[in-house]
Amino acid sequence: MMGLFELNKVDSGARSGTLHTAHGDVPTPAFMPVATQGSVKAVDPADLREMGATLLLGNTYHLYLRPGVETIQHAGGLASFMGWNGPTLTDSGGFQGYSLEHLRQITHDGIIFKSHIDGTTHNFSPATVMSHQEGIGADIIMPIDVCAPGGSDRNSVIEAVETTTRWAELCQKSHTRSDQHLFGIVQGGVFPDLRSNSATQITSLEFPGYAIGGLSVGESKAEMYDACDVATSLLPIDRPRYLMGVGSPEDLVECVARGVDMFDCVLPTRIARNGALFVTEGRINIDTARFKTEDRPIEEKCDCYTCNTFSSAYVSHLFKAKELLAYRLATIHNLRFILRLMEELRKSIEVGEFESYRKEFHSHFVPPDERTRRAQKQRWLEAQRRRPDHIPL
Amino acid sequence: MMGLFELNKVDSGARSGTLHTAHGDVPTPAFMPVATQGSVKAVDPADLREMGATLLLGNTYHLYLRPGVETIQHAGGLASFMGWNGPTLTDSGGFQGYSLEHLRQITHDGIIFKSHIDGTTHNFSPATVMSHQEGIGADIIMPIDVCAPGGSDRNSVIEAVETTTRWAELCQKSHTRSDQHLFGIVQGGVFPDLRSNSATQITSLEFPGYAIGGLSVGESKAEMYDACDVATSLLPIDRPRYLMGVGSPEDLVECVARGVDMFDCVLPTRIARNGALFVTEGRINIDTARFKTEDRPIEEKCDCYTCNTFSSAYVSHLFKAKELLAYRLATIHNLRFILRLMEELRKSIEVGEFESYRKEFHSHFVPPDERTRRAQKQRWLEAQRRRPDHIPL
Repeated sequence: MMGLFELNKVDSGARSGTLHTAHGDVPTPAFMPVATQGSVKAVDPADLREMGATLLLGNTYHLYLRPGVETIQHAGGLASFMGWNGPTLTDSGGFQGYSLEHLRQITHDGIIFKSHIDGTTHNFSPATVMSHQEGIGADIIMPIDVCAPGGSDRNSVIEAVETTTRWAELCQKSHTRSDQHLFGIVQGGVFPDLRSNSATQITSLEFPGYAIGGLSVGESKAEMYDACDVATSLLPIDRPRYLMGVGSPEDLVECVARGVDMFDCVLPTRIARNGALFVTEGRINIDTARFKTEDRPIEEKCDCYTCNTFSSAYVSHLFKAKELLAYRLATIHNLRFILRLMEELRKSIEVGEFESYRKEFHSHFVPPDERTRRAQKQRWLEAQRRRPDHIPL
Repeated sequence: MMGLFELNKVDSGARSGTLHTAHGDVPTPAFMPVATQGSVKAVDPADLREMGATLLLGNTYHLYLRPGVETIQHAGGLASFMGWNGPTLTDSGGFQGYSLEHLRQITHDGIIFKSHIDGTTHNFSPATVMSHQEGIGADIIMPIDVCAPGGSDRNSVIEAVETTTRWAELCQKSHTRSDQHLFGIVQGGVFPDLRSNSATQITSLEFPGYAIGGLSVGESKAEMYDACDVATSLLPIDRPRYLMGVGSPEDLVECVARGVDMFDCVLPTRIARNGALFVTEGRINIDTARFKTEDRPIEEKCDCYTCNTFSSAYVSHLFKAKELLAYRLATIHNLRFILRLMEELRKSIEVGEFESYRKEFHSHFVPPDERTRRAQKQRWLEAQRRRPDHIPL
């Protein structure tokens, strides 16, 4: 069997490569749109293919609760169930151990969740999480891990690292499907020595790919970049590196620079449903007065369906009128923005011009300031805790 | 200039024809998907073209309030603003005089509305309604009329007919754009002599097409069919007839049988967003247990995008999980069902087999019983009154 990952080119630390999966190849660096419950909110598989998506992420915790592993297995696995039929990855439910802290208890043997749907109790152990993910059938799967919140004290992070390593080993032992690739997850918060310990422990288990977890959970951007640096410096060159939960344009550029190959994040789709759209200069809010009679598209040089078809005035009206179409058009625009960014990053690496692309990107793209960004993230997390299954807007 | 309407064939009272508009031809009988606020809820123009939509309906009251006539005019008219670029028709706001009775006052000179958005007052007179619709720029436009609720007493209906005729004449005088076709509207409730009076008065004004209004507002199906019979028997053969607000599959068949050429209704799109889907045998509810592991599409012989791409199990899951994609997929299925029905009705007329098609249709399609149907309609109307601008589900 062909290995999962082929490294094509390295340019100033940034890497281009290819993931070979049972459902097709994925060029890297790759951004995964998030289909938590088996649907990337507001768009369909044809939209996703048209925008250039190559790999989708589903969530084991949500899919296990609804529609249930058997339903997905019966349909031939997640890719088939969704009508996507391309490469998929599932997260284990470990992140819900962080985001749904009021509904779970972390024990020696796993995470016990109280279902946000009906209050029933479910035990996510290394063995059950492997069994669920083998049933769901994604190409790349994740062990269950412990994600310590940003700001955790050193002892909590030490414990999270220890448990993550122990569970990773148990997951590896339980994993049977050779057509699925089980990654290891590096934890360690923002403590360089703990990141380093975790990376050493996890890589000693020899996984076909490695995820960097426990970031983008409340720490500063500088801390996140540093932790990412520590982790990637210790990960083997010939295995893909997946930075979990990261996906703002500036973070994608900076973490590709640090040697990351794969990303996922709800940010582009979540902010789209609030009318916040990515453009060359940063973010705009489409429902502000200046777009009321704007004939031009959201961005004239954008090649997405929304920009090719509709004026800013129309998209702005759809948001004001709360028309369902608004959410789809905005999601298409933001995802295409991110997926095009990934295509451009890859191209710049392949022609050896990554550093100049990176510099050029930062010369025009102005992210929201850090305080705004962290406040937004906090609000989202609180909404997520209230209604884990459905945050349409 | 070519006339608006060309009658191709009459078969047992059912008619096939063509509307020639400035934005293209429309084969009749035609069903118009409803884009109240300039968007057919949950779908986009490409979806609509793929389903075979040929003519869309917008609403003057809603569009005037938001985004405003000037915004639409600036974009080159409704068809262009929506990215649809095909034929459109606007209703005048007369129906909101019925559906928003708690927010309006009918005077001698027009209807005064209190905006459901900000409480401001707006006068819809024959002159302003013509001016608004000329700005919005649909191919077919409607005079302002008075729609008496089902169950109105004879005197109220007499008054509604008188006012409707007087306003129709004033609208005709105010109307200036020769590329737009202003229809007359026949009122008269369920009183045969009043329907007949209204038809005589309105046809004497010589409009290029006639609408039958004031039906599907709480009367029984038998009363609706009878009133439709009375009206069409008095309308000129060479002008299109448009039955306003009617669009259940059984009513479309029965009213095509009575010589109607055009229809509009929110029913197919509204019930779709509640998971109620049309199939050969009637309606199903997709979020019931029997679809949980159903690999087959909603209807195997259906040619819609949803049925070509997704299993019933997946659509059912999307509804249970409240994923936004559910509403689009269900809307596509129901609209395609209705638009295919119209295509088949037209074909049966053209080959002289309308009666056998009608018989065959009723042999398999079982509508919900009348009590259920009226209760559902009542609930919708109440929701409409609470939030006229946004009833997503």
